[in-house]
Amino acid sequence: MHRYRSHTCAALRKSDVGSTVRLSGWVHRVRDHGGVLFIDLRDHYGMTQVVADPDSPAFALAEKVRSEWVVRIDGVVKARTEETVNRGMPTGEIELYAREIEVLSVAKELPLPVFGEPDYPEDVRLKYRFLDLRRETLHKNIVRRTQIVSSIRRGMGDAGFAEYTTPILTASSPEGARDFLVPSRIHEGKFFALPQAPQQYKQLLMVAGFDRYFQIAPCFRDEDPRADRLPGEFYQLDLEMSFVTQEDVWETVEPVMTRVFEEFAEGKPVTNNWPRIPYDVSIRKYGSDKPDLRNPIEMQAVTEHFAGSGFKVFANMIASNPKVEVWAIPAKTGGSRAFCDRMNAWAQSTGQPGLGYIFWRSENGTMEGAGPLAKNVGPERTEAIRTQMGLSDGDACFFVAGDPAKFYKFAGEARTRAGEELNLVDRDRFDFCWIVDFPFYEWNEDEKKLDFAHNPFSMPQGGIAALDGEDPLAIKAFQYDAVCNGFEIASGSIRNQSPELMVKAFEKVGLSQTDVEERFGGLYRAFQYGAPPHGGCAFGIDRVVMLLVGAKNLREISLFPMNQQAQDLLMGAPSPATPAQLRELALRVVPTKKD
Amino acid sequence: MHRYRSHTCAALRKSDVGSTVRLSGWVHRVRDHGGVLFIDLRDHYGMTQVVADPDSPAFALAEKVRSEWVVRIDGVVKARTEETVNRGMPTGEIELYAREIEVLSVAKELPLPVFGEPDYPEDVRLKYRFLDLRRETLHKNIVRRTQIVSSIRRGMGDAGFAEYTTPILTASSPEGARDFLVPSRIHEGKFFALPQAPQQYKQLLMVAGFDRYFQIAPCFRDEDPRADRLPGEFYQLDLEMSFVTQEDVWETVEPVMTRVFEEFAEGKPVTNNWPRIPYDVSIRKYGSDKPDLRNPIEMQAVTEHFAGSGFKVFANMIASNPKVEVWAIPAKTGGSRAFCDRMNAWAQSTGQPGLGYIFWRSENGTMEGAGPLAKNVGPERTEAIRTQMGLSDGDACFFVAGDPAKFYKFAGEARTRAGEELNLVDRDRFDFCWIVDFPFYEWNEDEKKLDFAHNPFSMPQGGIAALDGEDPLAIKAFQYDAVCNGFEIASGSIRNQSPELMVKAFEKVGLSQTDVEERFGGLYRAFQYGAPPHGGCAFGIDRVVMLLVGAKNLREISLFPMNQQAQDLLMGAPSPATPAQLRELALRVVPTKKD
Repeated sequence: MHRYRSHTCAALRKSDVGSTVRLSGWVHRVRDHGGVLFIDLRDHYGMTQVVADPDSPAFALAEKVRSEWVVRIDGVVKARTEETVNRGMPTGEIELYAREIEVLSVAKELPLPVFGEPDYPEDVRLKYRFLDLRRETLHKNIVRRTQIVSSIRRGMGDAGFAEYTTPILTASSPEGARDFLVPSRIHEGKFFALPQAPQQYKQLLMVAGFDRYFQIAPCFRDEDPRADRLPGEFYQLDLEMSFVTQEDVWETVEPVMTRVFEEFAEGKPVTNNWPRIPYDVSIRKYGSDKPDLRNPIEMQAVTEHFAGSGFKVFANMIASNPKVEVWAIPAKTGGSRAFCDRMNAWAQSTGQPGLGYIFWRSENGTMEGAGPLAKNVGPERTEAIRTQMGLSDGDACFFVAGDPAKFYKFAGEARTRAGEELNLVDRDRFDFCWIVDFPFYEWNEDEKKLDFAHNPFSMPQGGIAALDGEDPLAIKAFQYDAVCNGFEIASGSIRNQSPELMVKAFEKVGLSQTDVEERFGGLYRAFQYGAPPHGGCAFGIDRVVMLLVGAKNLREISLFPMNQQAQDLLMGAPSPATPAQLRELALRVVPTKKD
Repeated sequence: MHRYRSHTCAALRKSDVGSTVRLSGWVHRVRDHGGVLFIDLRDHYGMTQVVADPDSPAFALAEKVRSEWVVRIDGVVKARTEETVNRGMPTGEIELYAREIEVLSVAKELPLPVFGEPDYPEDVRLKYRFLDLRRETLHKNIVRRTQIVSSIRRGMGDAGFAEYTTPILTASSPEGARDFLVPSRIHEGKFFALPQAPQQYKQLLMVAGFDRYFQIAPCFRDEDPRADRLPGEFYQLDLEMSFVTQEDVWETVEPVMTRVFEEFAEGKPVTNNWPRIPYDVSIRKYGSDKPDLRNPIEMQAVTEHFAGSGFKVFANMIASNPKVEVWAIPAKTGGSRAFCDRMNAWAQSTGQPGLGYIFWRSENGTMEGAGPLAKNVGPERTEAIRTQMGLSDGDACFFVAGDPAKFYKFAGEARTRAGEELNLVDRDRFDFCWIVDFPFYEWNEDEKKLDFAHNPFSMPQGGIAALDGEDPLAIKAFQYDAVCNGFEIASGSIRNQSPELMVKAFEKVGLSQTDVEERFGGLYRAFQYGAPPHGGCAFGIDRVVMLLVGAKNLREISLFPMNQQAQDLLMGAPSPATPAQLRELALRVVPTKKD
């Protein structure tokens, strides 16, 4: 028999009854039922119930073992009685009658219990991550994560992509976030940087003639910790294709990710043809470029109904500024004063002056708009709004007025809140879309200049002619995001692979050809030697996994995360360098006042 | 029709004749045959011959395009005449008659030609790596590398392993080489380290109850560049299993790697049952713990034949020191004075006093040993040696005498040289073995103390009893290497997962429990809470790829390698940090005298 096990703890079935077997695993818990000991023995694969009664030669040792000891148990498989069969457990029809127990490793008193997964402070969980990871939920999430990543790899391979590994010790990149630096020992005073993303390398791969690249790529940004971001490193599915339009990218990657989601969605519906929503439309309909399409609420402009109306606040705003619009947020089933007042109070709590509303009720067979706004604009305009928005008895509508550029985010939040409060959101779905046609430039009000709205690598729609045109803020980019259930899960673009166009695009944000060469040297040089049209995108692996396992916290899907203070409590990192190390790197630590 | 291509440059066949198609790619070369232009159009997938005669509307532009321009070409597929069919090319039966050419990207004068792959200085190749990577051999090697890695992943998945990703920003590890450090911005004066290997994490995963881990893992060692090692980062197939003996590890991973080699060996035979050779045996037979088993030469000790013989040099050595042995290196077909003298001269060139030999020839029907040694030891001993070594007419044998610990490496080199010079090595094979039972400790002559021979993580054979025994140098470890064609491709062990045994093992090399806790804190702590028996190994991906593509230089199988001075010439790394960056990291560069 094998030194440690003939079966895993998930393997034994009724058909094994009578066999002599050997299991190894962790003592999940021990129960004493009137002098008979029951040990739940756990391994990676599952759990088996072990029994030892006083007649068993293993009884004495069975009395000694404690939770999380590692033991080998030899015994005979017995059928459970009908009343003790556990249908919720794959091995629930049998139990192992212990004949011999060998203690392979003892456990000290546990700083963190495994059985039952009681809540524990995060720092204890991270310091004793090896215990935390034995807990059922986290263990399952991590296994699921490996399966998802493996499925992504398979899907990309089937779609004709090969996985190329790009350097981790590289040059400072111009992605915009802060780089982690790595001092070079051989070149004193010089530093490598860890990649924020393999953006330049993947584009260089296209210039080098590789056609379809992907990578489950480690990325590094030295940003201050945030709730939705782990300090340090994260992974993305990075991909790039040559000789493609943006439609090719969508049509290639969409089925891969759809299949991955379907594989792990546990029966929840997954969008099969992701709608492509222009950025401008998304902002107007959903108040966001990351719309949660599970929320059926779609906003519309109803400015005309308020222009010159008796609701003077809106009417005056409209009259005084051509930019002003009024947006309506329809709220089916929201037609009660209590709900509308709650929304209004919420709006005020976020710093807004309030949230105007109308709600409709049927009185004596006639539909009536209720609330102060309805009174002010009168029944005809109220009815016109109701008709446009497709609302009826028992529904409400909220209104936001002003310059949409300034209020759209708030309107989007109101849409989200109304959808959630009214339970209009179908939570058991994965709803995807592409947000497309992002603006190429945006206006930096602080510096009174143009900035790249997304990234300088993207191709402006209309090419050189558009850049020569009148209004740079009207230029769209071949730039797109993939959104699932309100989360941006991917971002990408068709790249600007023309050196001339690149210089011209940079000029508009106040950067010279020299700046381009300094900041994108490798890429800019490469584009001079025959660069194919190319584009791609990158999916955030963490977000995909969180969506699929339903986790709210990154630490619930990460193996060995740092804490919010960017420390690895398990391994004790970061830690001081030795004087010899610093000398070799020609560095001296110069404490600043901040400590 | 698609914006860029209806087919790749490898797709068109005779069955496409008559079709109007669109290709995009790089101009590989242009030839002018009596006024008719031939363009070899290349993409990632292959090559297609494009023709433009003066009647073609594309002719004027075809005259302008130069090597490595990126173009789109529309045209009609035509069959080649029987005499111009190129059977060596998948598209060799057709050509594309060009009707329209669009230049997608021009190329400046090339610093490095792609066509023909002429030799070029390495620094030019690295600076213009995007051109270098277009060259057929390197392009093919890189594609092959991605396929090999993908095949390894598939094999490991099929063997029940899941891929877990371990942190890259972590703590200084005690593997022995120099760490790359990453200054922490948030924790002034403290540093992360890049992992030399995920050793501690993979063991923690086992303690956390994950059963079969693997990872294509990036590893980082800040070592001085060497010919057989790229500066900075490298990849290994890292794996670990719980509840296993070393035989389980071998039996699990051996078929995976054998299948990978068979898949890419292009018909060359691959060992299917890797012999397991104890370290001591390997040293004595092959003079190396990385034996090239394609070389059939096996050494033997022939000390007794020289003890008390007329060859006084050896006889006196044997008499004066019981450690002295004489090893024989049989060299079939090497029986000529010219060859033996050449070997002797080679030995002297490496600093040895010489290399004694006997060779045999048949004169008048009797076998005769020739050379000075044969004369000195006399015909009987000469014949005894011949018989023991299984040699005959036309063969030679070389002899090395002394303390085997001091000469075995030289003996191994002589074995290699004899095998190669005599063409005894079958180059078209992949010959694997496991070298097992490595010593646990070794003697550090400089410091007059014991050191761990391999690594402190390994389990000593015999456990605590062995450590309590008399001769620590006699203790073997559950420590093994995989060797292919003379290269170590993997190393691994069953781990010491007992805290007590760990402390005891460290004591013998002069380290206290406190040292253990400081250097292996995470792991040592974890072992106190129920650690399963576990073990694994790690394969060097670079070496596997080099063997399979037949590359001699790491740069021929790496995408964006650094040069020998640890610089990335393409991206310009490392580079100085800005004063702001240094300030944020609380660091100052303190130049030393070395520059």
